[in-house]
Amino acid sequence: MRKTIGAATMAVAMMTAAPATAESFDLQSVFGLQVPSIGPSPVKWAERVKLMTGGDIDIKVHGAGDFVPPFEVFGAVSSGALPMGFDWIGYWASTIPVANLIGSMPFGPTPDVALAWMFEGGGMEIIQKAYDPHGVKVIPCHLVVPEAGGWFNKEINSVDDFKGLNMRIAGLGGKTLARLGANTQLVPAGEIYVSLETGRIDATEFSAPQLDLGFGFQKVVKNYYFPGWHQPSSWDSIIINMDVWNGFSEDVQNIMVEACKANIAFNLGDQLHAQADAIAAIREAGVEIRRFPDEVLADIRTEAEKVLTEEAANDPIFKEAYESLTAYMDRVGEWERLQAIPAK
Amino acid sequence: MRKTIGAATMAVAMMTAAPATAESFDLQSVFGLQVPSIGPSPVKWAERVKLMTGGDIDIKVHGAGDFVPPFEVFGAVSSGALPMGFDWIGYWASTIPVANLIGSMPFGPTPDVALAWMFEGGGMEIIQKAYDPHGVKVIPCHLVVPEAGGWFNKEINSVDDFKGLNMRIAGLGGKTLARLGANTQLVPAGEIYVSLETGRIDATEFSAPQLDLGFGFQKVVKNYYFPGWHQPSSWDSIIINMDVWNGFSEDVQNIMVEACKANIAFNLGDQLHAQADAIAAIREAGVEIRRFPDEVLADIRTEAEKVLTEEAANDPIFKEAYESLTAYMDRVGEWERLQAIPAK
Repeated sequence: MRKTIGAATMAVAMMTAAPATAESFDLQSVFGLQVPSIGPSPVKWAERVKLMTGGDIDIKVHGAGDFVPPFEVFGAVSSGALPMGFDWIGYWASTIPVANLIGSMPFGPTPDVALAWMFEGGGMEIIQKAYDPHGVKVIPCHLVVPEAGGWFNKEINSVDDFKGLNMRIAGLGGKTLARLGANTQLVPAGEIYVSLETGRIDATEFSAPQLDLGFGFQKVVKNYYFPGWHQPSSWDSIIINMDVWNGFSEDVQNIMVEACKANIAFNLGDQLHAQADAIAAIREAGVEIRRFPDEVLADIRTEAEKVLTEEAANDPIFKEAYESLTAYMDRVGEWERLQAIPAK
Repeated sequence: MRKTIGAATMAVAMMTAAPATAESFDLQSVFGLQVPSIGPSPVKWAERVKLMTGGDIDIKVHGAGDFVPPFEVFGAVSSGALPMGFDWIGYWASTIPVANLIGSMPFGPTPDVALAWMFEGGGMEIIQKAYDPHGVKVIPCHLVVPEAGGWFNKEINSVDDFKGLNMRIAGLGGKTLARLGANTQLVPAGEIYVSLETGRIDATEFSAPQLDLGFGFQKVVKNYYFPGWHQPSSWDSIIINMDVWNGFSEDVQNIMVEACKANIAFNLGDQLHAQADAIAAIREAGVEIRRFPDEVLADIRTEAEKVLTEEAANDPIFKEAYESLTAYMDRVGEWERLQAIPAK
């Protein structure tokens, strides 16, 4: 039942040989390539694209700042100065409001539900509408596991404990805690440690344990809280200048999307693995690993929904995505609750 | 920053044109191609491989029985009579004991943890050892969401309700309920409906809601129970005759694995979507959607662990996989518990 048509074996051999010609593109990430998980992700995507195009598409991946500062990657891709970029979608929230929702939706979808909504529930089509006026193609390409809830000098036993708290927290989660009386602020990544150490801030969220560990917060803060209610899942994406995208054949376009799906499956597995190791290391450093009490989470959720409703009123595509996503979460949420297996 | 090397545009155009030569292989699934989700899965994988090899590898996918009966697919791939197959791994448990664990491990990993273990936690390497003596390469290629806990004519309020129950249930889950006094038996898929209708059996598990719905069990049974403790996740795989596998270039081999990762990401999303719709349809048909009480689940778990320990004692690779998987679940399980967001 194995059929060889024509000079098939030779054709296969040729395909795998280094191609004499290749089209080459530069891609700049908003992250350093050495950052765990998100750093190498576009490199692995480029390897997948090269493999899957038989070497015809050769994408050279550069780290943050190689061509433009990280926050200018979107503008550079939009103008065509850069053909491609890799980002955390939430970085573009000031230009594209819905990016705030996809970047970190408080009490939003788990990674599985985010994946289903994005590729099968209409998410990708809604988001692309927001990118179209900027001439940018977006391909969700790395699904980020929940962040931690944050590092706190004091215990959080009631929602009143947020009152007057100086906390570094970004995005819609920051707006939510501000409504509960926290003094929220953004502190650049490199200054968080010193700000905690000197007492300029009392608390911070930054990322998931794998990344937080590298910043050394476990040396200066005693309580590490979960869940990461402000960001139960998040997307990093490949962005491509629309003229460059339109210059690819349909097969190459499809390969780029499929390479992202393979990237997502790989990264989902890889991240789970890494968080467990990081939590163990953080605990060994003497940190208390805690959960926010359920009542506190319920109170935060109430405020978060007010923030989301306000944002939705300000932008039609945010509104469309928010309504689509909440309807999707309601529907698929029952499935997750039905299938939950109690802890041993 | 866009560089064109040589006749790059022409090269891209050539790559996407229909190749003059292609190597062609037959693949037989153990499932009919019309079965929801698992039916088209190998077809989509073959499309991905064709796309990613520029048309050089053309795999013709056949449904159950086209060449050999479903349960003979493994033997046919092992002997080389068939170059490739697509299966539920658990079907090969009588030949490869560890296939029972990967096919359906009671109180086993969720899909996310199964994914992490398989590709990043050493799972694939352990399983391949069991396939090597049979000359078969295995590539996990479709991650199945949890099955339902089953259809029951009567309510299950305590573990005593399983005593004397005539239930259709397969594998290690069946062994577990037999220890609790159930009369477990296998009834072929096509005969389950009539067996329930005539009272020959009181209960059945078959698959997840998406597939169960098509069998019409909602017309004859009043209680549909969750969670699917006997199979919280499961794997379908591509199996390839080892000589055929070794005949592929390393690039083609890598493409086949990457195409499976893309398949997994696609199918994970697609299945979540479909289960929610199916549960709604089953409820509309008048069925009570219920959860097993937590105490019942705890009692079943105790018996299931005895079954797993016994099976592990009988086969060294089962033992290795079981120990690796339980250690992995313990480690990553804390991450999942920490990140759980309470229901609204």
